[in-house]
Amino acid sequence: MDKVRVIEIKKSVLENNERAADLLRERLKARKICLLNLMSSPGSGKTITVIRTIENLKNEMRIGVMEADIDSDIDAVKVAETGVRAVQLHTGGMCHLDAGMTQQGLNEIGIEDLDLVILENVGNLVCPAEFDTGATLNVMILSICEGHDKPLKYPLMFSKVDVMLINKIDCAALFDFDLDKVQAYARKLNPDLEIFPMSAKTGEGFDAWVDWLRRHVTDVMI
Amino acid sequence: MDKVRVIEIKKSVLENNERAADLLRERLKARKICLLNLMSSPGSGKTITVIRTIENLKNEMRIGVMEADIDSDIDAVKVAETGVRAVQLHTGGMCHLDAGMTQQGLNEIGIEDLDLVILENVGNLVCPAEFDTGATLNVMILSICEGHDKPLKYPLMFSKVDVMLINKIDCAALFDFDLDKVQAYARKLNPDLEIFPMSAKTGEGFDAWVDWLRRHVTDVMI
Repeated sequence: MDKVRVIEIKKSVLENNERAADLLRERLKARKICLLNLMSSPGSGKTITVIRTIENLKNEMRIGVMEADIDSDIDAVKVAETGVRAVQLHTGGMCHLDAGMTQQGLNEIGIEDLDLVILENVGNLVCPAEFDTGATLNVMILSICEGHDKPLKYPLMFSKVDVMLINKIDCAALFDFDLDKVQAYARKLNPDLEIFPMSAKTGEGFDAWVDWLRRHVTDVMI
Repeated sequence: MDKVRVIEIKKSVLENNERAADLLRERLKARKICLLNLMSSPGSGKTITVIRTIENLKNEMRIGVMEADIDSDIDAVKVAETGVRAVQLHTGGMCHLDAGMTQQGLNEIGIEDLDLVILENVGNLVCPAEFDTGATLNVMILSICEGHDKPLKYPLMFSKVDVMLINKIDCAALFDFDLDKVQAYARKLNPDLEIFPMSAKTGEGFDAWVDWLRRHVTDVMI
């Protein structure tokens, strides 16, 4: 297949990222576009989650994907195989995206004809939580391989997101992961957190997440 | 058990981290102390690797551990149960340690009577690779749950370390992880990289890593 477009993102020169993020979010809401910022550690299953989400929803809404990575274009190539528009954003070594960098990506992908734009952030459980991208919806993935103690060690991420997907539950037998504990730790930081245990590989539990996202995007579009 | 000591690390005011790191490394080498900086994504198995390494070597050399995290003291408490001296470093939200922050930790733990100091860095595959801590030995862990494509996406980390431990090989049957590919990708970035596939949980493959580290620390001590 053709290579996807790779965009070299420039470091933002914004002095006030929070203000820029609020402005971007207001513009997106006015246009009835959902911008989903997906965050997690490296290897938690962001790309496979994006692909399964697209397969479930691409006939109901218009979806575009921005894959952010320090290097390579393998994720955008994989996502483009679903048939949706995908671009690869290279962050030039940067460990996160902010609102200015996100806006650069949106300018390149073009959002006028989209209902849902998914931004797969750099794999990092720390820095992306510190920078508001301007997204209208923030989602994180924790895979059960990472352990249920992660909300205790990386509290900011768990307190900032709207949704936590708990991935790789098909491997639960091999890992000492306590689903009740992780939910209790996370909800202590973030009482309104939506939580969906699932496997993006087998599809187990995935419908609940897709149903929730469908309702959310439909609410935005109305 | 008693709670371990938690040290709130201050942000460094160093203008030249590389120079500070080189000076720290020279001082450690002059005192015949190995400072091992251990880096990985969250949940790759750093703490269990530290504990199994200690159990193997604590009767042969004097070991101290600094556990760096944004929050909590659970890792330092676990490590202290092995009987070695352990402190918890809180980074105050910072996503990495630099040489100045590492020096603060070393001042607190006290290194005069130690042969090997293990610094468990913040779980992050991006930022810790950008900041030289002054360590004499840099080691990373990649768990097979994270996927064999990680050297393509996070090249700096793989190019900076002396050793790559490939953890959780006991779970290999469940994951589509290509051991040959990851080694080829990593060695392309770093031809001299030492690689040890292992399971810190079952102990499979662990002896090769411990034997290598024993020889390395003994060489430093002479």
